[in-house]
Amino acid sequence: MTKKALSTKKISTKEEALKLLNHYDHFLFDCDGVIWLGPDIIPGAAELIEHLTKMNKSYAFVTNNSSVSRENYMKKFEKLGIPNVAKNLIFPSCYAAALILKRDLKIPEGSKVWVLGDEGIETELKEAGYVPVGGNDPALDDAWSPDHPLLQVDEDVKAVVVGSTKKFNYMRVSTTLQYLLHKNRSLPFVGTNIDRTYPGPNGTTLPAGGSVVFYMKFTADRDFIDVGKPSSRLLDSILKNCSFDRNKTLMVGDTLYTDVKFGNDGKLGGEAGSSLLVLSGGTSQEEVDQLDGEDPSTVPSYYIESVGHLVDLLRG
Amino acid sequence: MTKKALSTKKISTKEEALKLLNHYDHFLFDCDGVIWLGPDIIPGAAELIEHLTKMNKSYAFVTNNSSVSRENYMKKFEKLGIPNVAKNLIFPSCYAAALILKRDLKIPEGSKVWVLGDEGIETELKEAGYVPVGGNDPALDDAWSPDHPLLQVDEDVKAVVVGSTKKFNYMRVSTTLQYLLHKNRSLPFVGTNIDRTYPGPNGTTLPAGGSVVFYMKFTADRDFIDVGKPSSRLLDSILKNCSFDRNKTLMVGDTLYTDVKFGNDGKLGGEAGSSLLVLSGGTSQEEVDQLDGEDPSTVPSYYIESVGHLVDLLRG
Repeated sequence: MTKKALSTKKISTKEEALKLLNHYDHFLFDCDGVIWLGPDIIPGAAELIEHLTKMNKSYAFVTNNSSVSRENYMKKFEKLGIPNVAKNLIFPSCYAAALILKRDLKIPEGSKVWVLGDEGIETELKEAGYVPVGGNDPALDDAWSPDHPLLQVDEDVKAVVVGSTKKFNYMRVSTTLQYLLHKNRSLPFVGTNIDRTYPGPNGTTLPAGGSVVFYMKFTADRDFIDVGKPSSRLLDSILKNCSFDRNKTLMVGDTLYTDVKFGNDGKLGGEAGSSLLVLSGGTSQEEVDQLDGEDPSTVPSYYIESVGHLVDLLRG
Repeated sequence: MTKKALSTKKISTKEEALKLLNHYDHFLFDCDGVIWLGPDIIPGAAELIEHLTKMNKSYAFVTNNSSVSRENYMKKFEKLGIPNVAKNLIFPSCYAAALILKRDLKIPEGSKVWVLGDEGIETELKEAGYVPVGGNDPALDDAWSPDHPLLQVDEDVKAVVVGSTKKFNYMRVSTTLQYLLHKNRSLPFVGTNIDRTYPGPNGTTLPAGGSVVFYMKFTADRDFIDVGKPSSRLLDSILKNCSFDRNKTLMVGDTLYTDVKFGNDGKLGGEAGSSLLVLSGGTSQEEVDQLDGEDPSTVPSYYIESVGHLVDLLRG
């Protein structure tokens, strides 16, 4: 038998599964590695959501992927057989960025916001009434030149949002740097997430959004406002927006330092525990076996192979 | 009068300049910001080198720019009016990388070395008997695809060298990541320097080599072997190669956390002091005025406007 962390309980019987579902009223799901894996649904995920709906439980989705807007996530849920997911139940970190610029940072509508990142950020900023610049501007694919006009700061830019992008090049990072250093580093610097990597196809591990955020943090020598998981600021926004009771909410995710920490730092679930780890994404059984002695904020309350296994137990 | 750090002495009279030059036998010069600024020589730099030669002082050049090979630095010195600088007196960090792979890390000649960086690294690796791969391979400018063959690890690669490059794109960072994670992160990871930025034209500040090194460090979640300034490993190599007496050597540079720290950490100069800061590059008078209370390893022993001012004082 493998050594198990004392505080992490494996859900492996019907009774345990029922007890878990009975205790919580609200479920926060990470998406990639939990509901789907790249383009494919995780077997049983649609059934679990259906089951929760029937039981009058409520749920929302929170993902550190900043590349995709809520509109496009709705289409993805639909396509994967999870219909009728309302837009206001989906919290990708691109939307979190727009939300926090407006509510917490009070950046006035109509302001320009410099973007290093994908279309999701641009779409959500526009929807919030901002004018995104940078981002997918084709001029940022020009050959790099120190005389390029985009290196001259536009004084109408009032904040900078940085997230994942595969279009990452020297033009994009050097233009973004001018804004991060401008006015003695005082423009707000929002980072969509802190994830280092994600599991790619063919056994690869690929750089994630946090790698771009930390590149800019190091180069500009200044800190950023993290609007993705595990930010408590984001959790508080979601609980408020969805009217979830903190003590009755469980976080379900596949990553220890974002998802599990998000639930634990946010003190979800009261004494019953904050987080359920699934092993269908970035965390292995081996890592669970070695959790003993880890930072308690990254130790899940429960774990199970996948959300599909939870459905199997409930049915079994 | 401005407040001055107690331990940093401004060189401002002929007597002080003479005393400085008399005490030291060997001089280590940073290049960009000290000897030249981009394409232009710093006024007086050629005269100082000539003066040192006449006085039978010895000197070497050590730069954290990994993009240019020693051969090309020799051509640059010649072109800027500093003739006959021997190749074995020039230590760019691309050469330092090759030197340390061979001497310290004992990577066998003939091994492949994965490169994220410019031609300088490839040239110096080849000269040391290695086979650079990655680097400027035009396939790394292909559109990114997770199925690209370069994402499959070549088992003949025995080390990874990362330095500055403006060709920085997702293909390059994701291929490099596969090598940094390979075999439980055990392939040696050499970073050419830790510099965040350098002063660009038109008032810009641009990302430097350390930004690429720290991107890979964060994403691969592992540390690197720093072969640039302020690495003591590099200083020891130079002192040995050039037969310089540590107690009689002065470091001359324009950057506090690389050049000055290099001299101070290496205990150059004995009690007379380790480093002379020049203000012709990345450090301003304002920063010198605020040195009080800083980490003592980044506080220079002396400072002066530029190497040209030193020549003026000696003549005056």
